[in-house]
Amino acid sequence: MHQGAPLVSTTQTSEAAAAPHTFEATPVPFTEDQLDQVAYNKDGLVGAIVQDASDHAVLMFAWMNHESLRRTLETGRTWFWSRSRQEYWCKGETSGDRQYVRSVSYDCDGDALLVVVDQAGAGACHTGNRTCFYRAFGPGGATPPGPTPPGQ
Amino acid sequence: MHQGAPLVSTTQTSEAAAAPHTFEATPVPFTEDQLDQVAYNKDGLVGAIVQDASDHAVLMFAWMNHESLRRTLETGRTWFWSRSRQEYWCKGETSGDRQYVRSVSYDCDGDALLVVVDQAGAGACHTGNRTCFYRAFGPGGATPPGPTPPGQ
Repeated sequence: MHQGAPLVSTTQTSEAAAAPHTFEATPVPFTEDQLDQVAYNKDGLVGAIVQDASDHAVLMFAWMNHESLRRTLETGRTWFWSRSRQEYWCKGETSGDRQYVRSVSYDCDGDALLVVVDQAGAGACHTGNRTCFYRAFGPGGATPPGPTPPGQ
Repeated sequence: MHQGAPLVSTTQTSEAAAAPHTFEATPVPFTEDQLDQVAYNKDGLVGAIVQDASDHAVLMFAWMNHESLRRTLETGRTWFWSRSRQEYWCKGETSGDRQYVRSVSYDCDGDALLVVVDQAGAGACHTGNRTCFYRAFGPGGATPPGPTPPGQ
């Protein structure tokens, strides 16, 4: 039975630490009609929100183009387009913090994606935090609750 | 005690229908230093993910500029920038489906926001669905689980 969990949790639970999950990449079926519902911006990109399947935490936001969305659906791993490096990247391929896709939805006007994943490893953020959204406005909100990011 | 709930639920629970919530707008404190962490794109915009505080469903994705983010924090209601109409809009001001802000976070590189809200009314989507992400890739995924959108 699933219990609700905090939106932002930065450490694995002791239960998870005791019995780490092994996830499997599973392709997501899709039709060309569904793919055509996605509206790309003038740079050919669509924003992708990545959410954790286990506790519904929003982990990260990144960009996909038509080809990286197709790869995501076909491989069951998250593929993005790096605007700075102008190349495809598969989340966790170097860090090991891989994302195993459970579902992909598109919004009412097709210009945003919601990708629900099982997050492997330490988390989604390159800073070492579980989620990229580790800083909130407000008192104390600028202090990351997780591990100190490199260089800070 | 909070229980986990499906990521996408399109109808109010009978409990919620029996005892509808009355939410209150509460300003979110912030510092200018925190505001300066937000990185806007070349159009002066930053993407905002809106998530329901009650069950963590991702409700919608829209754009904010510097002024709409400030209004969001100061008023405790969600303010966005409409790219098509080139004007500010406050979610639910006409529909009644208002969003009461509980927290706002910014991601590691400051170019995305996560706004956690109490969602009043029928939901976040103009189609009548609770969430804008009501269509998933896969068999049957293109059929909205909620009310039929207007014009479809």
